[in-house]
Amino acid sequence: MKQIAILGSTGSIGRSTLNIVESYPERFSVIALAAGRNLESAYEQAKRWKPKIISLASEPDAQQLQSRLKRYGLKNIEVAHGPAGAVRVTTHPEVDFVVSAIVGVAGLEATYEAVKAGKSVGLANKECMVAAGELLVAEAQRQGKPLLPIDSEHNAIHQCLRGGRLEEVERIWLTASGGPFLNTPKSAFASITVEQALNHPTWKMGQRITIDSATLMNKGFEVIEACRLFGIPPQKVQVIVHPQSTIHSMVEFVDGSILAQFSVTDMRLPILYALTYPERIPSELRFPVMDLRHLDFSPPDLKKFPCLSLAYEAAEAGGSLPIALNAADEVAVAAFLEGSIRFDKIPEVIQAVLSETERRNPESIKEVLLTDEEARQTAHKWVQRLSRSTSLMPRTASAIRHGE
Amino acid sequence: MKQIAILGSTGSIGRSTLNIVESYPERFSVIALAAGRNLESAYEQAKRWKPKIISLASEPDAQQLQSRLKRYGLKNIEVAHGPAGAVRVTTHPEVDFVVSAIVGVAGLEATYEAVKAGKSVGLANKECMVAAGELLVAEAQRQGKPLLPIDSEHNAIHQCLRGGRLEEVERIWLTASGGPFLNTPKSAFASITVEQALNHPTWKMGQRITIDSATLMNKGFEVIEACRLFGIPPQKVQVIVHPQSTIHSMVEFVDGSILAQFSVTDMRLPILYALTYPERIPSELRFPVMDLRHLDFSPPDLKKFPCLSLAYEAAEAGGSLPIALNAADEVAVAAFLEGSIRFDKIPEVIQAVLSETERRNPESIKEVLLTDEEARQTAHKWVQRLSRSTSLMPRTASAIRHGE
Repeated sequence: MKQIAILGSTGSIGRSTLNIVESYPERFSVIALAAGRNLESAYEQAKRWKPKIISLASEPDAQQLQSRLKRYGLKNIEVAHGPAGAVRVTTHPEVDFVVSAIVGVAGLEATYEAVKAGKSVGLANKECMVAAGELLVAEAQRQGKPLLPIDSEHNAIHQCLRGGRLEEVERIWLTASGGPFLNTPKSAFASITVEQALNHPTWKMGQRITIDSATLMNKGFEVIEACRLFGIPPQKVQVIVHPQSTIHSMVEFVDGSILAQFSVTDMRLPILYALTYPERIPSELRFPVMDLRHLDFSPPDLKKFPCLSLAYEAAEAGGSLPIALNAADEVAVAAFLEGSIRFDKIPEVIQAVLSETERRNPESIKEVLLTDEEARQTAHKWVQRLSRSTSLMPRTASAIRHGE
Repeated sequence: MKQIAILGSTGSIGRSTLNIVESYPERFSVIALAAGRNLESAYEQAKRWKPKIISLASEPDAQQLQSRLKRYGLKNIEVAHGPAGAVRVTTHPEVDFVVSAIVGVAGLEATYEAVKAGKSVGLANKECMVAAGELLVAEAQRQGKPLLPIDSEHNAIHQCLRGGRLEEVERIWLTASGGPFLNTPKSAFASITVEQALNHPTWKMGQRITIDSATLMNKGFEVIEACRLFGIPPQKVQVIVHPQSTIHSMVEFVDGSILAQFSVTDMRLPILYALTYPERIPSELRFPVMDLRHLDFSPPDLKKFPCLSLAYEAAEAGGSLPIALNAADEVAVAAFLEGSIRFDKIPEVIQAVLSETERRNPESIKEVLLTDEEARQTAHKWVQRLSRSTSLMPRTASAIRHGE
């Protein structure tokens, strides 16, 4: 029986994980949950799963949850809150496997502490690997425990990599749907609305990751994630646009053989893979092979999607740059979503933040978070400048980009 | 340095193997060659490669080769002939790896003796696995040495299988180009000419394998080969028509993940894979991933291609039936090629031979060859009957099929 903790239990990956646990009660049990601000869902999950511990983001929510659980007769569930609560969830002594699925750097400390406590970790949180990949991988290696990717692309790569050794990899082909603006001309990017950007062609996901998919920054993060997770240099990771999203990714070996993975587009599949690795267990998730038909592939347009180039730049530099990349993107995307900056200003904010970020190598999660905080402040400054320039003086935007 | 013996050195796979050896002189050397009746090529190969031993099919050819080599100053090359010569080639004490690439059962004994002598064997000879798969696999397991497939489909399967354990395989998807008659109506099959049947859309191969591709019997043999080589029951091997032949085969695992292998259609790739397994070494054989585009898949039409059903029948039964299947096919194809029977009579000959074959389990190569010989005689009888019926009494063909 594998005892599971879920960091981000009320989100999409969290709920899919619970669905898997429900389908295989003889294999998995959930004993620790960390949710965010969704008190109602957390209450329902606590009643349904009766974990040993559940944590929420805020103290008032946690207090309310505790009293509701008491009234319901569940007195033995420990209720925690905040970053420390999340760490208690992921490091609970009875936990074997942690599913890390909080979006953003919020899950970073709890994930790192889980690795440090010798847990096996399934990573659905991209930011963990982008911002602290070097630290996480080093600690996992020290502990001799795996870091397993829970997203369709890296999960596919993980599977294909079983066909050879790391040093036999010629190239990783990271597939990208291309997002909703694959065929939108660059000239129209300035007027892209929030609604258009949230309309992803393939996956239903959270708001930030959907915007990141529209700018291809999401793919940029995945390039960094792949480099860290598999120990592959950025020049060996190639993004390839594949609108059908049928093939989740490919690995080309030095001898010329290419292995590709595909499956239904259902997150339960990579979750199940991570939970059972190195085993595979039967699921009902069948891909209709006979329907495999038209596959399109093309190189990404870096002029339209400069975020991708910025990510390669950060991947090459390592250290503080990927942290700044992620922080700046989070701020810029939020600003776009609330209408403060235009869609095409997102990469401009990030580029400006990268140029202002001091190059250093954080050696602890604390230093990572410090770098993250600094980059956020820089990003807020640039959001303000670019939002003013956009609404009041549209012609000066490019002047600002080139340093005013 | 891996010391290689090639069984069938003047054929297409043999020459590709020599090309590989030429490209990696620091890794491989050729020390034993067995050719068939192509004296001129054998002479050139002996001069170029200076093997320790070379064998030809016939004694007069061997004598002529020996005197020509002597005149050329190569006195130390041992020249052998016949089945015993081939065995001496594959069991030569200095040989590490045997490439078994003689078409037909001719290579069977020499291949089996190689396995028995503890050599690693790369199999390009389909008939070995079809007729004596059980014996070969059992012996290879006893020796703890691998049997590595040198054909694009099984090589692809071998690679994809690295993504999981055998008991985690849901299904093997064996791809088939569909041959030149994929879109030919069944009603036109009776008038298919030798020239039409030899015009394969994808691969340039020998005559027999080209006809076997046109009847899909080649794919049927591959089903049996996959079952024997990987220890998978026939119902888990599914043939899927894929005219582009881009994906060389796929493995679907129980969890719903599918791994597919593709590469340029060049036999040097599976040869290199087999020679270096479990390593992979760099080659120049690059697949243009961006060109991956239209992939069609459809189930095979068993009414048009009854050979495939016959192969499944033989695979299920095992023992003497796959031997008879192969022998009957070889006779029927030869009869078609020399104009004695019609194209659509090939499966009729085979079906008739299968029904007349006594079900038993040969326990030695001698017994395999005996069963093979009996089946050939039965096949010759049926070729004669069906050829007379075709030319003189065309209306009686179906009566004969149903038992006269």
